[in-house]
Amino acid sequence: MSEKVKGERLTPLAHNLVKLNNFFWAQRQKTVFNISIPYQYQALNDSVPGATASNAIKNFRIAAGEMKEAYGGRVFQDSDVYKWLEAVGYYLGVEENPELESIADEIIDLIQRAQQEDGYVNTYFTVAAPLERWNNLRDLHELYCAGHMIEAAVAYYHGTGKTKFLTIACRFADYIETVFGSETSKKQGYDGHEEIELALVKLFKTTGEERYLALSKFFIDERGMQPHFFDSEEENRKQEATKHDYSYYQAHMVEYDYAYFQAHQPVREQETADGHAVRAMYLYSGMMDIAIHTGDGSLYKACKKLWNNIVSRRMYVTGGIGSIAHGEAFTYDYDLPNDKAYTETCAAIGLVFFAQRMLHYEVDREYADVIERVLYNGALSGISLDGTKYFYVNPLEVWPESIEKRKDNYKKRLRSTRQEWYGTACCPPNIARLISSLGHYMYSSNDREVYAHLYIDSEANVKINGRNISIIQKTNYPWDETIQIQVNPENESEKFTFALRIPGWCRQATLSINGKLVDIKSSLKQGYVYLDRLWKNGDSINLQLAMPIEKIQANVNVRVNAGKMALQRGPVVYCLEEVDNGSNLPDISISQHAEFSSYFDHELLGGVTVIETEGKRVSNMTEEDILYKPLEIETRTVQIKAVPYFAWCNRTPGEMLVWIRRH
Amino acid sequence: MSEKVKGERLTPLAHNLVKLNNFFWAQRQKTVFNISIPYQYQALNDSVPGATASNAIKNFRIAAGEMKEAYGGRVFQDSDVYKWLEAVGYYLGVEENPELESIADEIIDLIQRAQQEDGYVNTYFTVAAPLERWNNLRDLHELYCAGHMIEAAVAYYHGTGKTKFLTIACRFADYIETVFGSETSKKQGYDGHEEIELALVKLFKTTGEERYLALSKFFIDERGMQPHFFDSEEENRKQEATKHDYSYYQAHMVEYDYAYFQAHQPVREQETADGHAVRAMYLYSGMMDIAIHTGDGSLYKACKKLWNNIVSRRMYVTGGIGSIAHGEAFTYDYDLPNDKAYTETCAAIGLVFFAQRMLHYEVDREYADVIERVLYNGALSGISLDGTKYFYVNPLEVWPESIEKRKDNYKKRLRSTRQEWYGTACCPPNIARLISSLGHYMYSSNDREVYAHLYIDSEANVKINGRNISIIQKTNYPWDETIQIQVNPENESEKFTFALRIPGWCRQATLSINGKLVDIKSSLKQGYVYLDRLWKNGDSINLQLAMPIEKIQANVNVRVNAGKMALQRGPVVYCLEEVDNGSNLPDISISQHAEFSSYFDHELLGGVTVIETEGKRVSNMTEEDILYKPLEIETRTVQIKAVPYFAWCNRTPGEMLVWIRRH
Repeated sequence: MSEKVKGERLTPLAHNLVKLNNFFWAQRQKTVFNISIPYQYQALNDSVPGATASNAIKNFRIAAGEMKEAYGGRVFQDSDVYKWLEAVGYYLGVEENPELESIADEIIDLIQRAQQEDGYVNTYFTVAAPLERWNNLRDLHELYCAGHMIEAAVAYYHGTGKTKFLTIACRFADYIETVFGSETSKKQGYDGHEEIELALVKLFKTTGEERYLALSKFFIDERGMQPHFFDSEEENRKQEATKHDYSYYQAHMVEYDYAYFQAHQPVREQETADGHAVRAMYLYSGMMDIAIHTGDGSLYKACKKLWNNIVSRRMYVTGGIGSIAHGEAFTYDYDLPNDKAYTETCAAIGLVFFAQRMLHYEVDREYADVIERVLYNGALSGISLDGTKYFYVNPLEVWPESIEKRKDNYKKRLRSTRQEWYGTACCPPNIARLISSLGHYMYSSNDREVYAHLYIDSEANVKINGRNISIIQKTNYPWDETIQIQVNPENESEKFTFALRIPGWCRQATLSINGKLVDIKSSLKQGYVYLDRLWKNGDSINLQLAMPIEKIQANVNVRVNAGKMALQRGPVVYCLEEVDNGSNLPDISISQHAEFSSYFDHELLGGVTVIETEGKRVSNMTEEDILYKPLEIETRTVQIKAVPYFAWCNRTPGEMLVWIRRH
Repeated sequence: MSEKVKGERLTPLAHNLVKLNNFFWAQRQKTVFNISIPYQYQALNDSVPGATASNAIKNFRIAAGEMKEAYGGRVFQDSDVYKWLEAVGYYLGVEENPELESIADEIIDLIQRAQQEDGYVNTYFTVAAPLERWNNLRDLHELYCAGHMIEAAVAYYHGTGKTKFLTIACRFADYIETVFGSETSKKQGYDGHEEIELALVKLFKTTGEERYLALSKFFIDERGMQPHFFDSEEENRKQEATKHDYSYYQAHMVEYDYAYFQAHQPVREQETADGHAVRAMYLYSGMMDIAIHTGDGSLYKACKKLWNNIVSRRMYVTGGIGSIAHGEAFTYDYDLPNDKAYTETCAAIGLVFFAQRMLHYEVDREYADVIERVLYNGALSGISLDGTKYFYVNPLEVWPESIEKRKDNYKKRLRSTRQEWYGTACCPPNIARLISSLGHYMYSSNDREVYAHLYIDSEANVKINGRNISIIQKTNYPWDETIQIQVNPENESEKFTFALRIPGWCRQATLSINGKLVDIKSSLKQGYVYLDRLWKNGDSINLQLAMPIEKIQANVNVRVNAGKMALQRGPVVYCLEEVDNGSNLPDISISQHAEFSSYFDHELLGGVTVIETEGKRVSNMTEEDILYKPLEIETRTVQIKAVPYFAWCNRTPGEMLVWIRRH
């Protein structure tokens, strides 16, 4: 899968050419493979006691005419099945599991039976609303579900070599192509929830069919154009309203403007990341896919502006995005409230997709830095250590009482503990597919260069000029500073450039090859050290990335973080938990000159590096019934223990805090 | 009106026996009389250009059969007219205004014409929903409107001596008595929005009819009892649902539980202030009225618990109450977010009502302290200096961009500037009636004692044992520390106790009579200094209340105020405004040891004392496109100017902040 595809300057290594070993991510991938994927299958089959019923697989049985029941769940319920199958596809690419494969094959057979004569597959429309097909692209996630099917089919094909699912997806895509397009006989429309765009590019890359690339570009080009598609389809619906009942969706969606759908302007004119954050990420990923595969520089230019807006104004230190529950959306520059952060797990994952595409258009560590920031923080927090519980929303400050007792918070999917499942269960299978395919984000190559973006204990097989290079990383990253990399060309030796990312968080890196120090500075370009040499079998790189504990400040315009700091070690952002530090975490302050100690605790949270220091708490105001009184500060020194943010809420539930007051 | 009424230990002086002079409140009362009351009349008549249409007076014309149009506005629109008439009643008690009186008389005539044969008055039900009468007490504010009519009629009677409006109100109350009561032929119900309870007590006090007191007690006793009235009336509605359409109100209200209405438990069992804050205040006021006039100690006991819960856990430093827009409600202990504060103007006013009743049950300065805290801060902020613009919601921190761009804030009536009017316009006439009747909160008396609760430049006529005492206060309070009080008994001399409140905020008070120092400590009881002597005509009290600028801290459990302080001088809470201090106010910090200067600026904001000091701002992070970076604090010294909170947003709109970071 690392063959060069038209337009690509740099090809990401397929995830199944990387085998994760031993430590951090291998453990998590194993948990996803052995626990989450089987667990999610139970959830999709409504077999998890106490969890919100999914109905997702049942809907396919009903659509296939094998059950007689009412459709259950949201309009986009199908997509949960597809994302799960996509994760399974990644899994089966990494290791065999005949039992799981046969379960997946059965579901694929079921999908095939639910496919209509014309190629159409969507259980909501087939079962509940056959007359509404293609009548409300804005609200009903029709092409969104199609996109997830395509992504799943591509992954399953690559993972198993089986073509049945891919054929189903191609039939559907071919049918979609008969409905949408610039010809006057077709609809000049696009989906309210982007996803089909990036999916069609995957289908193009897998099948070589340029029609799919063109259809994706069509959807992107149409978006936000005038006369507005959402207006015209709404006008059509109004005219048909006497025949059918669209009131629910009209009522449901009426509060959002077109920016919610990134359809307020043509995509090339958009300059700030607006609207629903997941949708935005999927759109921008699709835009970059088109930029990469068609060379459309105007899309890259727009994406670059959007990227800069996100990472310099609208992203949490955890890599989370989306500051508001209303519309699950971006808001405005520097509006990054910690307790009201929406920071949906899916949005963080979407940012990884977008960042990877930016990275492949122009290699710069800032993109890989964001991938790493999200992976170790705002995405990984979305799944419990045991792989069975999920956060949909990932705030940076939690006071459980606030979530439980302020009903407006609770309504907005904020929870103070991870949940077994969600009525809208986009996030659980999304994090599963990300972790299943993690190898995909580690390396890229072209015919002269291999890039290492991430450091994970692993073995990879990169092809360069048709020849295999085995790259073995030995590291306990992100806990250890040392990364030992062995380069083994298939031939005795091979001339190529091996570019290694020096992470942006790292202020002191040293690198040696076979024990000989390399001057990083002189060979550093956009954050990658370029090692251009004749690589010999067994060449050994030793990379040291110093990981002191960093006190991080936010831009002064982020008003909620005034006077505060976050703690970060390597790529890992830390937090305080009530279980370690007592309640009322905002009362704690740490000196801006504080010194820290850290140690790896094998027993804690599956093994994490813990940070300790001294802090202060206000010790007066013990007369607890006085609400306001003249200032008279007495403080006491307390021991502070910080743990990685991603691992929070895996012990006794309670308060959590990322941004700590400093004194 | 200072005659003793059954049950009262202490009688508040009628507001019209106090004439405000010269300074602070006299100016504001004048503005309300000359500007707000005429302005609000225009608003109620839909004649303010650009303001939300009220429809309130039009609805009466329609109900009287004099216009044929659809009912306009909310179900409780009538109450805005009543609150305005109540304010007019207070006004006419203080000074003559034949033109205004004739306008008010005309409206009263109109109300009379809208009154039904049986005594019923409510334009919503008469015009829009005649079949719904008494069918949905929970949601439709039927007795709430009746209560406001009664309050208005009582005020108008006292202000003008005219009985017509009082007769209308009595007819309505008499009719209500035929509908509600413990007899099986009557409804055992009560209103979703409390108000009738305290109104009926006013009617009792004015007419001497104990039936009204008993009916009030009935409503209070019934509240929250099982089987639950709201359940049974809902059951009735369901049964009638085929005949009428109640869907709107059922849908509208379905998200609130019975705590929203303070109907989750019998009132005597309630221990925390819960639900809609205005409703809670009106209920507690009614409960205390019954406690006072029937001697029901169980109601006092419950109110004392509720009071303590509010002032020690759930009240903002401005006296604002209600921490959440959802349900305009109390939330839970120590949940006092500054930017999300709901702190409705009406709720603050309601707290004044409740506090005054507590004060008359047991004289303790803590009640008068809260009255003063609300008056000078969280209530007064609800009206612009020119008397024509209003805040419905009074947060303690405003970032206008957040209000305008976070649509969830805007939806919840948060605004960054005062508005001409509101669709739900409860607050504007409510603040008008409070300021119009301010004298009412200054003094109380019984046959041995006169109490001075507030210090306002004024002349009052207190009656003690049938003899008049003129009390003249000369002061530029709250700006000046000196209050000069002259006591002039009608006779040459009079033996009685004059008790003066030493405010809780004051740490150094001195008092002299005719130049002779009095030892305050030895005669201080519950915050009042008791001066028991033979008062001679011309006796002069000099009270000095030291007003250094106090740094105030919040209880350590108020998490959002950790590391912050508020500034207060005398009873006035201060804030920073963008117009004085630049944008990004949370960036500012002030030393916990800061020294302040203050001066009275005649030109500023109608004349206010200004506070100045030095503060710090973070001066690095100038590379504005870096969102996160290692901590490297550089600060610069800046001049800080604070102005009274109540006066904010009377100049260039912008950011505002009460709780300031300290270093």
